[in-house]
Amino acid sequence: MTGRDGSADIGPIGNAPVVVLVRPQLADNIGAVARAMANGGLFELRLVAPRDGWPQEKAWRTASGAGRILDALTLHDTVADAVAGLHRVFATCPRPRHVVKPVFTARAAAAELRAVEARGLRSGILFGPERAGLDNDDMAQADALVRYPLNPAFMSLNLAQAVMVMAYEWWVAADTTPPHTLMTNETRVATKAELENFLTHLIAELDASGFLRNLPKRPGMIRNLRHLFERGEVTEQELRTLHGVVTELAHGRGGG
Amino acid sequence: MTGRDGSADIGPIGNAPVVVLVRPQLADNIGAVARAMANGGLFELRLVAPRDGWPQEKAWRTASGAGRILDALTLHDTVADAVAGLHRVFATCPRPRHVVKPVFTARAAAAELRAVEARGLRSGILFGPERAGLDNDDMAQADALVRYPLNPAFMSLNLAQAVMVMAYEWWVAADTTPPHTLMTNETRVATKAELENFLTHLIAELDASGFLRNLPKRPGMIRNLRHLFERGEVTEQELRTLHGVVTELAHGRGGG
Repeated sequence: MTGRDGSADIGPIGNAPVVVLVRPQLADNIGAVARAMANGGLFELRLVAPRDGWPQEKAWRTASGAGRILDALTLHDTVADAVAGLHRVFATCPRPRHVVKPVFTARAAAAELRAVEARGLRSGILFGPERAGLDNDDMAQADALVRYPLNPAFMSLNLAQAVMVMAYEWWVAADTTPPHTLMTNETRVATKAELENFLTHLIAELDASGFLRNLPKRPGMIRNLRHLFERGEVTEQELRTLHGVVTELAHGRGGG
Repeated sequence: MTGRDGSADIGPIGNAPVVVLVRPQLADNIGAVARAMANGGLFELRLVAPRDGWPQEKAWRTASGAGRILDALTLHDTVADAVAGLHRVFATCPRPRHVVKPVFTARAAAAELRAVEARGLRSGILFGPERAGLDNDDMAQADALVRYPLNPAFMSLNLAQAVMVMAYEWWVAADTTPPHTLMTNETRVATKAELENFLTHLIAELDASGFLRNLPKRPGMIRNLRHLFERGEVTEQELRTLHGVVTELAHGRGGG
């Protein structure tokens, strides 16, 4: 399926949460929301009473390839209508007042939304208008609130940024990327034997050059060099370069 | 300290990571980056060779109150100059090639940046230009790469969104908000005794109305009602309302 802006297929719809924008004001933001949704694997967007009507061409520009989400969105007069088919609804809300409601961090909400998905139920997340946020009647239609832990001295969060954080947490909640790896591309991490072979080469040349002539200090100096090279993960390719460097420097000395 | 756009103090500078935008193209994005930084408690911004020069009035508009960050940013000709005073540098990079480098998720990078901060060292995070991203020479100046786990079918991530994710993870890495609470505002969670008192009232009225006249089914029906009210956390105020509802319904029945 190709969007009306020519955007390609950007992922499955599946049973991921619906994003509901309540009385959004700026078409730019609606497009940017669609882009953020695509980043986090959310594809179903519903608009409740957008201020300037719908469609708005500007939105397709800021969607930047996620126009398919805008093509498929649905328009609703009320929040009740937008959430009618859903089983579980969260409302994002920075500073709720006079509300009695469970409150989740974005991360905990994402875990909860994944659990709802796993049960085969449909969920949604409400985002309020740019300036005012959701009002008390909007929030009364949600099961729970989501509050992001962010700098309390600067609460002005752009609408698309708010969606980005939730979409990101939704994606990460099911992600299995190892937190930390070594990217080696064409090469691989050197074995200890390869590293030892290089150190032997280095030490031999340093002995030949006289660098290690202070015999009482020699073991400590060698240990320092070993610590340096054993500290991280050196690749096989880097070791070959280092062999070349040592040979070249030793050769340069001899020939100079 | 007040910004030139009248923005108020939005938090301490401290030892948080520096954000380095490498060859950024759009002033709008630079402003939106400042806003995202303020959201996540990052305050020091450096620009390397911005395409359209600097300053650009547009940036203060999209910064939306975070103008102080723009007022204080520094300009640099090269990445090397921008990171010269830093001890640890991460480079955000969606698809690195021909690079041998440690790679962190955003979350793991945030933990690492907090560890660097705790050691009293200064860190920075590089973000590349809007279309091309960082080139190999930029990345060679970083200690490690950061790759966000996000929808691989839609990699087009807005610059300010990329900064938002990292700023958010930075903030959350030191945040202690409980993942899930019940917001009660003016009231509080009811005690079990208060709940029991309400259930006694409800059952008495249901007995009086004849609703529980099927004696073999009565224990099961009461248990179902108990399960309903014991499921979540009911507040003291809600119980008072429910007492009123039961009394009114019973009274209405008697008077009708």
